[in-house]
Amino acid sequence: MAALNTLTATELATKIDSGSATAEAIVQSHLERIDQRDADVLAWAHLARDAALARARVLDRGPRQGLLHGIPMGVKDIIDSFDQPTGYGSPIYRTHQPLADAATVAMARAEGAILLGKTVTTEFANRFPGPTKNPHNPAHTPGGSSSGSAAAVADFQVVLGTGTQTGGSVIRPGAFCGIVAYKPTYGHFAPAGMKANTEWLDTIGAYGRSIEDIALFRAALMAIPYAPLRPLGRPPRVAVCYTHHKPELSAEGLKAVEDAAAGLRKAGAAVTEIELPGPVRDMTEGQRTLSAFDGPRAHADESRRFRELLSESLKKDKLAAGARIDYATWAAARRLGEAGRAAVDALFDDIDVILTAPAPGEAPPGLETTGKATFNLLWTYLWMPCITLPFAKGPSGLPVGIQLVGRCHEDATLLDIAAWVRGALA
Amino acid sequence: MAALNTLTATELATKIDSGSATAEAIVQSHLERIDQRDADVLAWAHLARDAALARARVLDRGPRQGLLHGIPMGVKDIIDSFDQPTGYGSPIYRTHQPLADAATVAMARAEGAILLGKTVTTEFANRFPGPTKNPHNPAHTPGGSSSGSAAAVADFQVVLGTGTQTGGSVIRPGAFCGIVAYKPTYGHFAPAGMKANTEWLDTIGAYGRSIEDIALFRAALMAIPYAPLRPLGRPPRVAVCYTHHKPELSAEGLKAVEDAAAGLRKAGAAVTEIELPGPVRDMTEGQRTLSAFDGPRAHADESRRFRELLSESLKKDKLAAGARIDYATWAAARRLGEAGRAAVDALFDDIDVILTAPAPGEAPPGLETTGKATFNLLWTYLWMPCITLPFAKGPSGLPVGIQLVGRCHEDATLLDIAAWVRGALA
Repeated sequence: MAALNTLTATELATKIDSGSATAEAIVQSHLERIDQRDADVLAWAHLARDAALARARVLDRGPRQGLLHGIPMGVKDIIDSFDQPTGYGSPIYRTHQPLADAATVAMARAEGAILLGKTVTTEFANRFPGPTKNPHNPAHTPGGSSSGSAAAVADFQVVLGTGTQTGGSVIRPGAFCGIVAYKPTYGHFAPAGMKANTEWLDTIGAYGRSIEDIALFRAALMAIPYAPLRPLGRPPRVAVCYTHHKPELSAEGLKAVEDAAAGLRKAGAAVTEIELPGPVRDMTEGQRTLSAFDGPRAHADESRRFRELLSESLKKDKLAAGARIDYATWAAARRLGEAGRAAVDALFDDIDVILTAPAPGEAPPGLETTGKATFNLLWTYLWMPCITLPFAKGPSGLPVGIQLVGRCHEDATLLDIAAWVRGALA
Repeated sequence: MAALNTLTATELATKIDSGSATAEAIVQSHLERIDQRDADVLAWAHLARDAALARARVLDRGPRQGLLHGIPMGVKDIIDSFDQPTGYGSPIYRTHQPLADAATVAMARAEGAILLGKTVTTEFANRFPGPTKNPHNPAHTPGGSSSGSAAAVADFQVVLGTGTQTGGSVIRPGAFCGIVAYKPTYGHFAPAGMKANTEWLDTIGAYGRSIEDIALFRAALMAIPYAPLRPLGRPPRVAVCYTHHKPELSAEGLKAVEDAAAGLRKAGAAVTEIELPGPVRDMTEGQRTLSAFDGPRAHADESRRFRELLSESLKKDKLAAGARIDYATWAAARRLGEAGRAAVDALFDDIDVILTAPAPGEAPPGLETTGKATFNLLWTYLWMPCITLPFAKGPSGLPVGIQLVGRCHEDATLLDIAAWVRGALA
């Protein structure tokens, strides 16, 4: 019998419902995995061993709480929890104990989820990395900024995890760690209680090891009714989009998209290649402008009172860069985003989904950087829902994913399409 | 000589620059006013008497910090401060001491502002009122939810104040209290450290007793260079918009807009009357949908752990109402907002500003409600910058304002137009 920690949330929920597993046994199984693996992966900023077991026992004694009854989750340590410290990846907040749960944490708990611990984030969900290693090869980055959640879910240390994406911080680590990662349409998971970074872009996202788990977790994190994935009525119209950054794709990154496109065509999908409409052809710069402008503003208190505790990387890339962006440039980037969303939305009259790369290729070696967000910035800027699926292996044997991008607010459809794609490429 | 507490920030800055006033004397003057008036107005959730004086003395000994050197400000108690408790207008947070300043607080302090205290907010910036009374007549509401900042600035207890608007919570109290209130384009003042309400709408705003002060405070709160108000090259094209809610205007509210329109025409402005474009004719419902959907989500933790400490009003109007909004309705309201912003933006090819009412009329009697946001919901939903100016008196002798609404991101132009309007109507 498979160890409980290797099952998905959907599978575990069935076991709990049928009485063939307890929440306590599920938590215990994950804690054992963590005991074996934590020193190699270092995914946790805080682990709530005893509290998680105690909560599991309470849940086992009571009625079913909701969609995630007894399911352990990890929460990126940029998101507040009332009963566990929340360090934001910064020494400034090393002892920070929020008084309240973030909205998403409270909603997941209301559905019976067990907060196993807080997962490592880069400093303020920016670029300066935490200690986490790629579970497939500790010499490689797990990606960032949601490093810990992606690594822990990939390594079977926890079932579900949350992350946040301002540039590429949910999708990229998911692809590097070989799991399913989902960034919803901007604003879908209420950001209350998340430490702000670039509020115009910051999006809470979800990690799991199956698309079904993402659908389940999504319903809990939005407090909406859960609807299982629906079969498509017809094969989807797929638009392959390499973006202007195609030359920056690695060989394995390019091959993954090409192979996936070929596979989908073979399975009956109408596959075309598109370039983005004129005004939004390369909006990477727009994302950078918004992100830079907000940097010194969102971190005004830390800049003023704790400057010596900020990394050089944050000071240089975010605070100094942001101070050079003027108001007119920033306002133009916001206006461009509005125009871009309208232009891209219109594309979806003729297509169902965009197929692109989630990252340039497999996770690069080294832990000093978390890899490039080149293939994420655009979609984050356009607020579009994104999902990455594991697809191939790179030259170092590390996972290489594909990314599907949907129409804003049609997140449920994107997940349905992802399931079709998974089947078609199996 | 006028008492220091009756001067504007712009006037006080000149006095400090010339050495004819100290920050300590300015703070002292406001504290004396508070001593006289606090029992009648009850604008403060927390007053930092000693800390403000100590900070003033430090500032008096050192070089000029920035735009607001030595200027006392009040901050709505929905916005975090590292050195003063932040109660969010709720007994749940009675002892809450944030670890960090909100972004706007830190930016204002970096410019030398002195945080005199935290001002009363309704419960979580919703409808359940705090104790604050209208300084012009304590039997009338000051408006809400930014009740304390509006009342304190109007009553000369502080020079500048911040508020937040999700429906009409900055503009309406400003009009009811007879001061200048400004709600920027959505997202202009970084919301980091503000307790979330409806994150798609929540907008930090500013109070002062002159348009010049708003321009000064705006520069500080955005960390952008300060530019004094500029004279217009020609009289503005003014579009009077009563909205679909015209029948809900009181006699004095209607007369104020009519008289202002006539005065502006007389002063040379091209004044027309407009109806809003078809799809966005009445977007009040859209605001209500977004606000209701977010209610139970943004307050998921309080709902789960402290339900008995929430007001009946919040539970009924926000949490229960929100639970009835489904995903499709919410997503449609977000889409409608995008379409509405584009449609209204196009109007500004032919007009420079919209003239409308900031509230149905003067502040209603009673302290049980904070008045109606009917004439604010639309503009908040469309993210447009708004400013209210005091203009007339109502039948009870209370202030009646007018509201000017500008094009998104053209906030500086809106303030310039407001100054022209003030001159034209003087």
